[in-house]
Amino acid sequence: MNNLRRSIVLKSRPRGLPALQDFLLQTDALPEPGAGEVLTRTLWLSLDPGMRVRMNETKTYAARAEIGAPMTGETVGQVLASRDPRFAPGQIVVGGRGWQSHIVTSGDALVILPPGVPPSTYLGVLGMPGTTAYSGIKDIGQPKPGETVVVSAASGAVGSVAGQLAKRAGARVIGIAGGADKSRFVREQLGFDDCIDHRAVDDLPAALKQACPDGIDVYFENVGGDLQLAAFPLMNMFGRMIMCGMAAEYNDTVPRPGPNLASTFLKRLRIQGFICGDHPEYYAEWRALAAPWIAEGSLRYREDIVDGLENAPEALIAMLTGRNFGKALVRVAESEAA
Amino acid sequence: MNNLRRSIVLKSRPRGLPALQDFLLQTDALPEPGAGEVLTRTLWLSLDPGMRVRMNETKTYAARAEIGAPMTGETVGQVLASRDPRFAPGQIVVGGRGWQSHIVTSGDALVILPPGVPPSTYLGVLGMPGTTAYSGIKDIGQPKPGETVVVSAASGAVGSVAGQLAKRAGARVIGIAGGADKSRFVREQLGFDDCIDHRAVDDLPAALKQACPDGIDVYFENVGGDLQLAAFPLMNMFGRMIMCGMAAEYNDTVPRPGPNLASTFLKRLRIQGFICGDHPEYYAEWRALAAPWIAEGSLRYREDIVDGLENAPEALIAMLTGRNFGKALVRVAESEAA
Repeated sequence: MNNLRRSIVLKSRPRGLPALQDFLLQTDALPEPGAGEVLTRTLWLSLDPGMRVRMNETKTYAARAEIGAPMTGETVGQVLASRDPRFAPGQIVVGGRGWQSHIVTSGDALVILPPGVPPSTYLGVLGMPGTTAYSGIKDIGQPKPGETVVVSAASGAVGSVAGQLAKRAGARVIGIAGGADKSRFVREQLGFDDCIDHRAVDDLPAALKQACPDGIDVYFENVGGDLQLAAFPLMNMFGRMIMCGMAAEYNDTVPRPGPNLASTFLKRLRIQGFICGDHPEYYAEWRALAAPWIAEGSLRYREDIVDGLENAPEALIAMLTGRNFGKALVRVAESEAA
Repeated sequence: MNNLRRSIVLKSRPRGLPALQDFLLQTDALPEPGAGEVLTRTLWLSLDPGMRVRMNETKTYAARAEIGAPMTGETVGQVLASRDPRFAPGQIVVGGRGWQSHIVTSGDALVILPPGVPPSTYLGVLGMPGTTAYSGIKDIGQPKPGETVVVSAASGAVGSVAGQLAKRAGARVIGIAGGADKSRFVREQLGFDDCIDHRAVDDLPAALKQACPDGIDVYFENVGGDLQLAAFPLMNMFGRMIMCGMAAEYNDTVPRPGPNLASTFLKRLRIQGFICGDHPEYYAEWRALAAPWIAEGSLRYREDIVDGLENAPEALIAMLTGRNFGKALVRVAESEAA
């Protein structure tokens, strides 16, 4: 270990899909933690579709990435030095943010990870993506036994949890995923009732209709675009659309038109957006609920791991084009004995 | 009074705006009530924008109007003959349905009107339109003190109540209406904070933005079209869109595109449709709440009355083009002493 910190900063705001030259790797001196702060060495960096939204000029729910500043992102880190008495070197913590090899964070933002499940899960199935799925299903979707739930990006970090939660609620769950391997994973590993490979079907609306003979009661939206166009007309009376993301449209420079909203009253639809942070208490609630499921193997997940901070930009671009398979993570470093 | 019943039946399904020749006036013998039924003479017929939706081939929330059958619609009637012991000739009742001079209805569907307010109000401010406004504000809009509420078709039967309820909740209420007289009525009689005459402004989005410097927290949607286009981008974080109707688009033969739904998660919007009948208990709840307000004059309303059943088609067409001013009613007959 040397005494330098590596950071990946935003060099320019992309229009459309980000390119490698929108990012810059910088190196500076290892920072010292101030009073109440903790210095961590980053082990895992989470890559999330919402990062693309942060890179735009427009301010939204998420803190905007600033030109010349490190990209933000959730991490799992190992404490190197602490000026907060609650933390000691060697501990594994979640809460530091940044595409950086080393991060200084207020101790108030950090949580020490319990043993029992792999630390990386706290960035995926037990972290923000899992909590997002939990929140959307709990507050908006509320699937009932026998209802039909459709989940887009079904093999992804959010969709895989959303669909498994809907199955636990007794619903019939149809996934949509891009690729034969992802679709097979959704059916065979995640236990969805069916999964459509949207890249393999000529007529997605027809394929979705065939998979949902009783229509759609709950649509968990992660993708937008053609998938939304296919799902919207199939929504049933009192259907709920859990609006979590529209990753297929994040690189659009001109917004596409949406569906005519007369269906909302003709069918009494509820179309509702949310983000995980709307209910901060759900993080702990979900971790407590799901950690035993992970430990016993009844909640399945998959990770797509890239090694090395310097490869984070390429991995982000891959994720934005759907080339990841499972929760996208960068392994920045291995943990070391304290 | 003669012994014939007059009915207006649907002759052909209109494409676009209905025409007079889509309707036919028919005459037949006065029907006799069966066991448990009541024969009423129609005093008032309500005209509602939703009637246009019923005339389409597509089945929706509302019973579809059938070719050759009388148009449906809510009425206030006077009992002529009853084979239900709860009703006696001369009573004024609401619950019979049809564009007909005389209607036979199961007694179970009828409610005897209490004295104190004019019977016609049970088709408007105290009836389905008023209950619709109450339901949308109560369940979806939930305006809080200081929030900005925008109501389209603000001088109409639903909008006028919705805005007055939002004022009672302490919100700042902006109406949108078509015409100088309607806008003045909304400001001066209904007490909204402001009202935009969308026919008088060159740039509706700019005018609405100016009237809503803090954005829109609740949008009560009755109109769709350009009004929705103007309101949607102004929605605030956690904004609610009460989707009640889109009357400006009912005559469209091809649905217009809607707004891109990424705003739902970027702003955590809730876009929810409903109809009055989703909560049948709200009818009585609203009547009990609002009848005293009507009696004391604190809840204002306006009626646009056309005389004669034969003029109902023309009055419906006028309403669908926004030419009515207040709750559209047909006075089919005067009440008579029992």
